[in-house]
Amino acid sequence: MYRPTHFQLNERNAQLDFIRQNSFASLISCYQGQLEINQLPFLLDETGNYLLGHLAKNNSHWRQLEQADDLKVCFDGANAYISPNWYSDSKKNVPTWNFVSVQVSGKASLLSEVALIDLLDKLSQKHEAKFEIPWTIDKLSEQQLSAMSKAIIGIKVSIDKIEGKAKLSQNKNEVELKCLVDGLKMQKDFGSQQITQMMRELL
Amino acid sequence: MYRPTHFQLNERNAQLDFIRQNSFASLISCYQGQLEINQLPFLLDETGNYLLGHLAKNNSHWRQLEQADDLKVCFDGANAYISPNWYSDSKKNVPTWNFVSVQVSGKASLLSEVALIDLLDKLSQKHEAKFEIPWTIDKLSEQQLSAMSKAIIGIKVSIDKIEGKAKLSQNKNEVELKCLVDGLKMQKDFGSQQITQMMRELL
Repeated sequence: MYRPTHFQLNERNAQLDFIRQNSFASLISCYQGQLEINQLPFLLDETGNYLLGHLAKNNSHWRQLEQADDLKVCFDGANAYISPNWYSDSKKNVPTWNFVSVQVSGKASLLSEVALIDLLDKLSQKHEAKFEIPWTIDKLSEQQLSAMSKAIIGIKVSIDKIEGKAKLSQNKNEVELKCLVDGLKMQKDFGSQQITQMMRELL
Repeated sequence: MYRPTHFQLNERNAQLDFIRQNSFASLISCYQGQLEINQLPFLLDETGNYLLGHLAKNNSHWRQLEQADDLKVCFDGANAYISPNWYSDSKKNVPTWNFVSVQVSGKASLLSEVALIDLLDKLSQKHEAKFEIPWTIDKLSEQQLSAMSKAIIGIKVSIDKIEGKAKLSQNKNEVELKCLVDGLKMQKDFGSQQITQMMRELL
């Protein structure tokens, strides 16, 4: 990923926080010169060294993961168009796009059935935590759980390298940043609203 | 991309509309067993057969695009967690994730400087169309335009194959879909709000 100095997101905790908050990601692998890409929710394990996820067994992607020549998991956040008209001088600026992205490079291995059930439990706990009465995996009968776990396969990706990019106009001064936030916050699309929040945090 | 029948988005116009509306995408290539991934806004050309974009010249990705063993452009929309508690019977359902994604496979070539300037003009026109007074490329002096076009490189990707996936609980009946929309619309995150809109359109 091209990461000019201004836009590097290098702090490990910030990278891992971004992964936790944008956990639905793209699993991208290259095997014998062919790309395969699928999206799935990942769980960052407690050590911060592994990503855990699962695929349908009918999804052949899992069969080539351990042999992949290269493998990345890409966590992409919101993105937003930035109009030159929002700067104090629209004649000195050109259109651009702001966004945040974290790319993990690593090696994949398959999970045992026990580890897969543990992952399903933890994934539910994570995503149900915001509800008053969280759904828990023990709502399923043993038969249902067994059927489900036979239809999917768990995977574990080692976090060998993380590259983060936060392109949020950090190459502009505070006056211009404020101008951009003023322009961006008026846009109705969800991406602009999220990027506005992130750019406000820079000020 | 794993695409069970229920979730296939096969209609060409729907795929192209999705590309137009989610044009900030991931350019993913595999060259000599190594992945390279960058995000950039793409323009669908008038014929619907090509994607056009540009990279910083300092971004070495462009140097390997024409030789890539495989190349995809992935357009990802919103995504949202679906709680089993929202169905009429939470004991019969498991957590899942809804999302829409379109993957284009193709070959890349580099644009001439004339074609690049034309692209910059069209990209501005597209993204400025919503503003009362759109910024146009002729706001730049000849010197500025020349400096900018020398710092970037235009690319063209042939749309050789498109695969679309719209995972929006189409495998559930209308009663359940309504239950899911009722649950999802209460969630405050941007992804849930966007997926709610898309699922409402199914009803």
